[in-house]
Amino acid sequence: MTAKNAFYAQSGGVTAVINASACGVIETARQHTDRIANLYAGRNGIIGALTEDLIDTSRELAESIAALRHTPSGGFGSCRYKLKSLDANKREYERLIEVFKAHDIGYFFYNGGGDSADTCYKVSQLSEKMGAPIQAIHVPKTVDNDLPITDNCPGFGSVAKYIATSTLEASFDVRSMCATSTKLFVLEVMGRHAGWIAAAGALVADQGIPVVTLFPEIEFDQDKFLAAVEAKVEEHGYCSVVVSEGCHWPDGRFLAEQGTRDAFGHAQLGGAAPVVANMVKEALGYKFHWAVADYLQRAARHLASKSDVEQAYALGKAAVEYALQGHNAIMPTVVRRSSDPYVWEVGQAPLSEVANVEKFMPRDFISEDGYGITDNCREYLYPLISGEDYPPYQKGLPRYVTLKKVAVSKKLGPFEL
Amino acid sequence: MTAKNAFYAQSGGVTAVINASACGVIETARQHTDRIANLYAGRNGIIGALTEDLIDTSRELAESIAALRHTPSGGFGSCRYKLKSLDANKREYERLIEVFKAHDIGYFFYNGGGDSADTCYKVSQLSEKMGAPIQAIHVPKTVDNDLPITDNCPGFGSVAKYIATSTLEASFDVRSMCATSTKLFVLEVMGRHAGWIAAAGALVADQGIPVVTLFPEIEFDQDKFLAAVEAKVEEHGYCSVVVSEGCHWPDGRFLAEQGTRDAFGHAQLGGAAPVVANMVKEALGYKFHWAVADYLQRAARHLASKSDVEQAYALGKAAVEYALQGHNAIMPTVVRRSSDPYVWEVGQAPLSEVANVEKFMPRDFISEDGYGITDNCREYLYPLISGEDYPPYQKGLPRYVTLKKVAVSKKLGPFEL
Repeated sequence: MTAKNAFYAQSGGVTAVINASACGVIETARQHTDRIANLYAGRNGIIGALTEDLIDTSRELAESIAALRHTPSGGFGSCRYKLKSLDANKREYERLIEVFKAHDIGYFFYNGGGDSADTCYKVSQLSEKMGAPIQAIHVPKTVDNDLPITDNCPGFGSVAKYIATSTLEASFDVRSMCATSTKLFVLEVMGRHAGWIAAAGALVADQGIPVVTLFPEIEFDQDKFLAAVEAKVEEHGYCSVVVSEGCHWPDGRFLAEQGTRDAFGHAQLGGAAPVVANMVKEALGYKFHWAVADYLQRAARHLASKSDVEQAYALGKAAVEYALQGHNAIMPTVVRRSSDPYVWEVGQAPLSEVANVEKFMPRDFISEDGYGITDNCREYLYPLISGEDYPPYQKGLPRYVTLKKVAVSKKLGPFEL
Repeated sequence: MTAKNAFYAQSGGVTAVINASACGVIETARQHTDRIANLYAGRNGIIGALTEDLIDTSRELAESIAALRHTPSGGFGSCRYKLKSLDANKREYERLIEVFKAHDIGYFFYNGGGDSADTCYKVSQLSEKMGAPIQAIHVPKTVDNDLPITDNCPGFGSVAKYIATSTLEASFDVRSMCATSTKLFVLEVMGRHAGWIAAAGALVADQGIPVVTLFPEIEFDQDKFLAAVEAKVEEHGYCSVVVSEGCHWPDGRFLAEQGTRDAFGHAQLGGAAPVVANMVKEALGYKFHWAVADYLQRAARHLASKSDVEQAYALGKAAVEYALQGHNAIMPTVVRRSSDPYVWEVGQAPLSEVANVEKFMPRDFISEDGYGITDNCREYLYPLISGEDYPPYQKGLPRYVTLKKVAVSKKLGPFEL
């Protein structure tokens, strides 16, 4: 069997551990140079493949590749670029396969969420039709934890650990202040459609913290919400609120869309957190503080979950191993065998069943009143945030790696995106 | 010499390490029961003294007191309650001294910022006049780092480490995304008058990150700022902005005050970060993300600076030792002997020179263009964020302590605040 080259790309919003998957892919490929001659990475994701802007990963030192394991963000660059359907833009898919052919690429490892699983699946199908079959393996990644079949997605455990820890810390803070000052703390977290990240904030209730959680899965009811907050403040003197960015009114409008305009008629600038905080202030008069974690949560490699890092690496490694075993159009998955003690192993799912399916919080993970989580959810979440995996530090700051990213010589003409 | 009791209280906004100072005070007092019979803490700060709501710290286990060292927030509760001047409200000071007298308190340890240094000083003066002299020692605490004489304030190093790390991580994130998506990331940090925290974000420039920092010490110039951001994006493809909440226009208005009104005429809800982000978007068209760290930054014990924790403890310990040596109306300070290697020792300052003095960033710590920091500033900052001091974890979350806070029996009648 002759060696082929491999292509790897990062897709969509990056995470604290997507580079750990890259590390797993590259280190494993380097152990099989008889089958995988070289591994090229797409500069800025799939755009790098379309424009033939490939990075020669063999030019990176082994220690740089190893350091990807503890470096957040996308080391090769990512992109938000969804390939259209085959019918709408067959040209793009054909270009991909043309580039892969020109660089003798036989393996396609695509590290992303639902959209990229779909792209990956189509590349596999079309390449076969075009007589240049490519084994396409999808490596799951998303902080939103919304991919089906896999028990969880690499990237989620670390953001969950960060949000749970931050909610705990800020709640201790407001508890200290509530006698004369702040009584309400609101933290806005990611999750436009699924409330997995918000659920992690709700874990602090187990430590006696009064917390009200607002999920995108539950329609917002202002009166009921205010009553819930008031009850917590009456009992505890303070309350924390974790609001998902996707929390919305019954008519579908996000809380963040208040129709607010500034003097120039520009739309309101804030997010859901200030809206919720001001709503409580007006109704109940509590002094508040609010935070919007935004990129801080998904980039917080300094507080990564050890199980998340291990799974991110393991799925990258498994992707290469599955490819070498001849698998195609699949995604390695996390299969949970036991929650306590936490036991998991790597499985696989056909991409035909992964692409374009979103996994929401099951209703039995959300408490009856809609503002907390159930024991089923706790049992699910705790293993995913378990363990610490600290990066090395230098002069007080994490020592993250920046790759050289040496370009591969082009063999084709330019391509218009 | 007969033993007296001691009183300890936490004041103002809490920090990641104020409890480490409490730990230093209490553990040291416990070693000197021949001189300090018992140590009472104010429930919710000085309010606990005024209302005679004292906590008996002898009822806390040694391991709970030890755990204060790694627990953020104010373990005994804090408050925002500034005593008026002696002339305006002598009644409050007299009540304090009455309570101290009733509970045989000879030592007053007050853990806070500039206002509490002032209170501490007055208690010392007045108690002497009233014939019940109390040794009053101020233990410095403030994330704002704005106290004079001491090289730095406990609480600052940890928030600086958190902001520098978060800026680094989020900048790596936006760097990954900038080819097709987000080009601007704006992080809002604390610091209403002094830009010390914002300066910590500027440290990431040393790692090649394009960052524009907005200090409260520098009047905001919109055109110049936009040009600075545009130049960074032109060169690097992206830019991070660290904006101090105290950043303001030449007329003194904070950036966050945009005069924005919602449909009901309510004032704008957001902070400085969304204002800055939208300003750039309108002028330059860049897609942006923004975060407001708020309490997350000052509560982030999970990422505390080791030197900060050590200093917080050491100054608490020194406060007790100075008191036992007969000192009065002083504040233990950090004295820097060398930056590289970092060598510091404990010194002391008279409260008469500390009270009501604010320390701003020196102009030679801010780069000429006003958007970055100088080598002097770097040399100052790096030692303060050096070293890690992780809390213990259980089930994936930091294991912070909640004290029992058993009340001391009251001996006096009620007091109206």
